[in-house]
Amino acid sequence: MNIPFWIDTVRFDEKGLVTAVVQDAGDGTVLMVAHMNREALVETLQTRRGVYWSRSRNRLWRKGEESGNVQEVVDIFLDCDLDSVLLKVRQVGGAACHTGHRSCFFTAVAGEGLEVRGKPVFDPAKVYKKK
Amino acid sequence: MNIPFWIDTVRFDEKGLVTAVVQDAGDGTVLMVAHMNREALVETLQTRRGVYWSRSRNRLWRKGEESGNVQEVVDIFLDCDLDSVLLKVRQVGGAACHTGHRSCFFTAVAGEGLEVRGKPVFDPAKVYKKK
Repeated sequence: MNIPFWIDTVRFDEKGLVTAVVQDAGDGTVLMVAHMNREALVETLQTRRGVYWSRSRNRLWRKGEESGNVQEVVDIFLDCDLDSVLLKVRQVGGAACHTGHRSCFFTAVAGEGLEVRGKPVFDPAKVYKKK
Repeated sequence: MNIPFWIDTVRFDEKGLVTAVVQDAGDGTVLMVAHMNREALVETLQTRRGVYWSRSRNRLWRKGEESGNVQEVVDIFLDCDLDSVLLKVRQVGGAACHTGHRSCFFTAVAGEGLEVRGKPVFDPAKVYKKK
């Protein structure tokens, strides 16, 4: 796939990033929020896998590169002001969160406190190799 | 409702903002992405309506303040690194996007191009008053 003509209409911010919302293509669960620079977006388009820009590691982040839990991209949407991307994906391994939870959004507001919803799908210590 | 103890654990960025993903509480459609400062998050918690920080207008944005199409908040989640919020809402009026589309994510990647998916739910010219 060539780099599409519309890539230069995407409104990357002053750090060169757009917000990426990642949603399960099956049941619609919002799995995570990440960021993409132009390179990550192009590689996502070309490989049909979720590729992001890691702000903490300051490098391209091919989701699943360590755990094998890649995201197979089913559909990609841009929002009305062209500064956010929505990916509908199939999450290999069942969980998108590094904690082993299916979704990164497992902490719910409950009254004046917070509560964890659901249980981890995998044990992070087994999925992420020690370095 | 008091300001909850956990508000100071939220990791607002250098502009004082977190990303807010807004999802339909019924069918899981991702409706929009917006941003919240501390004040917007507290007001959302207290009023159970979607309140954001408008970066373009540089002021608090009570969604629906002009159109009447408010967002009734059903559930609020924080993500694992405490810098994104997920709101599950009932969208009054049926559409979250200022274009009249139900979701701001109505532009899909299709081959090397883009295509609009779905039709507007309302006519923006009738919903937003001229000023």
